[in-house]
Amino acid sequence: MTPQDAYVELVRRFHRMAVLGRASAILGWDRSTFMPAGATEDRAEQLATLGVMGHELLVAPDMGDLLASAEEGADRFEDWPRANLREMRRHWSHARALDAALVERRTRATAACEMVWRQAKADGDFAALLPTFREVLAVTRQVADAKVAALGLAPYDALLDEYEPGSTAARVSALFEPLRSALPGLLQRVLEVQRRAGAPLPLPGPFPVEAQRALGERFMRALGFDFERGRLDVSAHPFTGGTPDDVRITTRYDEADFSRALMGVLHETGHALYELGLPAAWRHQPVGAARGMALHESQSLLIEMQACRSRDFAIYSAPHLATAFGGSGPAWTADNLYRHQTRVAPGFIRIDADELTYPLHVVLRFELERALLSGDLALADLPGAWNDGMRDLLGIVPPTDREGCLQDIHWPDGAFGYFPTYTMGALAAAQLFAAALAAEPGIPTAIAAGDFAPLVGWLRTHVHGRGSSASTDAILERATGAPLGTATFLRHLETRYLAAYE
Amino acid sequence: MTPQDAYVELVRRFHRMAVLGRASAILGWDRSTFMPAGATEDRAEQLATLGVMGHELLVAPDMGDLLASAEEGADRFEDWPRANLREMRRHWSHARALDAALVERRTRATAACEMVWRQAKADGDFAALLPTFREVLAVTRQVADAKVAALGLAPYDALLDEYEPGSTAARVSALFEPLRSALPGLLQRVLEVQRRAGAPLPLPGPFPVEAQRALGERFMRALGFDFERGRLDVSAHPFTGGTPDDVRITTRYDEADFSRALMGVLHETGHALYELGLPAAWRHQPVGAARGMALHESQSLLIEMQACRSRDFAIYSAPHLATAFGGSGPAWTADNLYRHQTRVAPGFIRIDADELTYPLHVVLRFELERALLSGDLALADLPGAWNDGMRDLLGIVPPTDREGCLQDIHWPDGAFGYFPTYTMGALAAAQLFAAALAAEPGIPTAIAAGDFAPLVGWLRTHVHGRGSSASTDAILERATGAPLGTATFLRHLETRYLAAYE
Repeated sequence: MTPQDAYVELVRRFHRMAVLGRASAILGWDRSTFMPAGATEDRAEQLATLGVMGHELLVAPDMGDLLASAEEGADRFEDWPRANLREMRRHWSHARALDAALVERRTRATAACEMVWRQAKADGDFAALLPTFREVLAVTRQVADAKVAALGLAPYDALLDEYEPGSTAARVSALFEPLRSALPGLLQRVLEVQRRAGAPLPLPGPFPVEAQRALGERFMRALGFDFERGRLDVSAHPFTGGTPDDVRITTRYDEADFSRALMGVLHETGHALYELGLPAAWRHQPVGAARGMALHESQSLLIEMQACRSRDFAIYSAPHLATAFGGSGPAWTADNLYRHQTRVAPGFIRIDADELTYPLHVVLRFELERALLSGDLALADLPGAWNDGMRDLLGIVPPTDREGCLQDIHWPDGAFGYFPTYTMGALAAAQLFAAALAAEPGIPTAIAAGDFAPLVGWLRTHVHGRGSSASTDAILERATGAPLGTATFLRHLETRYLAAYE
Repeated sequence: MTPQDAYVELVRRFHRMAVLGRASAILGWDRSTFMPAGATEDRAEQLATLGVMGHELLVAPDMGDLLASAEEGADRFEDWPRANLREMRRHWSHARALDAALVERRTRATAACEMVWRQAKADGDFAALLPTFREVLAVTRQVADAKVAALGLAPYDALLDEYEPGSTAARVSALFEPLRSALPGLLQRVLEVQRRAGAPLPLPGPFPVEAQRALGERFMRALGFDFERGRLDVSAHPFTGGTPDDVRITTRYDEADFSRALMGVLHETGHALYELGLPAAWRHQPVGAARGMALHESQSLLIEMQACRSRDFAIYSAPHLATAFGGSGPAWTADNLYRHQTRVAPGFIRIDADELTYPLHVVLRFELERALLSGDLALADLPGAWNDGMRDLLGIVPPTDREGCLQDIHWPDGAFGYFPTYTMGALAAAQLFAAALAAEPGIPTAIAAGDFAPLVGWLRTHVHGRGSSASTDAILERATGAPLGTATFLRHLETRYLAAYE
């Protein structure tokens, strides 16, 4: 078989896997939005079957030979096919590292633990979680070990690689160290500044769901979300799902607070724009997929935090907010709304955190999950270590484990190595936004006028359209002149939260 | 391989096919309800891929040997596994009759014709449809011929068998002959009776969509529809989709006429109750599926026509209708509402037809599709033959082909052999309802009180729970004492439309 023939066959198979993945994505979206409760088992089986069939295609006995055959000719391939082949091998390497028994053990362990976790979290009862959590940790170590053997990476790096290809714990530590040392001090200075400035004027509710929904849709359209290729719906936990041709974002509404749903919609729209902007010519191939979780999160945070918590966005959005909710007077000015959107306060809950304290929540989790994985921290000692870390990083201690180490689903779900990508995304967002503004100085003025085309156009070219054709760092380097770093992010925080107040 | 081992392997494979089919059913439902227009191609590919993967499983090279091995021991199997094995062979025989090239030719032909049909129908332009329609007819003949060879059936019977297993054109003709001779005369007598009785009092609208929806849900719940295992939504063409654990029915609302959506919801609820009541122990096996289109339609028509256009249902529903739409006075009495629900009039459009004239629409289509398939009728002569048939059977001639031979999607879609099942369903519905009433004389009184449990309980036992464990006729014979016939249906029409008025 010639390299070209092998590659053509690989493209055919990966295309089919992608289509199965897309079908699963829609079924998964439906599960979180419209599925009746009694269909849970039925749907779980559909998703499991599609997953298994995709996995079977990926680890087919001749796949290794096909990859090797194609790779023999790879140096004569064009850039994109060559990158595609590299991504194919990456997917294959991850998949074949785990045998069926291990995959099943992990599925069983995480399903059981997730179920126990829901109740344990509600009760703030860490002890209740321990037995199933122990099994998840054990199986996660086994997964890591299997990947160590197959990928030649250290255990934590092997897990991280699935979410953020090519990254390592050392790299993450190097990025997080400046945050760990700068943010606690910065937080205290910002709190002092905001205390002196006084609280913004309160915004009187209630805020009807329908008005919130219409407003969210308006801003989505302004950002370039294409409702011919996507939807906005409601789910208990907001997410972006579906496929690059059918992107489905969700939110949840609170009539006492419009900001949560609205900023959530903008966040998910950032994810959605990435999916919608992936290279059309590579729709069903690995190289056409989003690069990794760090860049994905960078797109949601760039839209939510960099673009839409800016003064310029407040100028654009203030009159729309006032009209939608029948507000008037000084509380509904751009300035007051901006102050609302940029309040900082240490809190217990990661998903409620502002952009300044959020990285500290992530640093804590990164340190703890490495210690748990290596065995340096015993699982039974997690609550104490968590509370120590919170005191150390944020100066507060959660009253119960419910607001502490039980708050996130990630670990019970076996997703060790995922947390760092949130903050890597925040760093990348700051870096990309600054580069976009340097390249297109008209972006802020355009945003203030509700025109996001210059910003989104730049992202299309420099991030979305590049798919997985290069590494996260290579994409960032070409787009911003540097690989992922912390300087721009820290400068952004200082500018937004200190300089602007002084 | 022992027969038992072969059977176990078959069960495993058919289970997987069923799961793929269920995934497709949800994706198909989403396509008709919530999918954005731009995802059409994406979704078509997902459905095609799942279809192909299911087909590949069904026609796997060793499937014939597995079936033969299992069948060697079938006389020692219990009834249900033996019936399951018989259904497995039936599915396999249909699937392997067509080679991939023919399946693809059919898919291409019907997709092209369906597209042309939408415009041709809108324009009433039969000539525009002819070229693509010719290809569909040619490929349908080829499909029939392929199945003749594989199944040992006559061409039309081979097509019919896919929708109504075991039935034949001769059987259908024998059932339709009494209808063809009795209904035109009965129609004239009923029209005369209704003319003498005068029109019912008009029901003043408009009828808000939300009130219609709530009313539909109320009646669905009364009928025993389980909203933990199903939904009611909106689509352009009402249907019942989803899976037996997640049944999704749709309707469309017209604020000028509540009856269409409401009776449509009751019709689809009949389909849904069948799916929800299929034998749980055989959920993912062929023997656990609905028996065929005739019995399926019998369940929708039994609920809609037999149960819910009865005087008893009018007694139950009248106060709910009056409350929902703020109606009062003589127009909103059970008697007046019943007269609305039982108006008879010849019309051009099958889907708008009452239960008395509907079979004549089907008789016409049955005769024409047989003549088209055999070549006795040239495709170009279809409009004339259609109009002659309408004059002959219903005494009216459509003004254009839009209201004539272009109205239905079935033929452009290649679904020759489907139409007869509508009327076979109507016959079965009358027969089953009469048997239920004979067995449970309290059913009418219960319906008048909004209690459908006695009726639906009887259907659960005698129809739903039997799945595909026996033939349509065997199921009917055990439930009603006789195979499918016309006498009960004709008696029902005479009782409802003549005796009750005289």
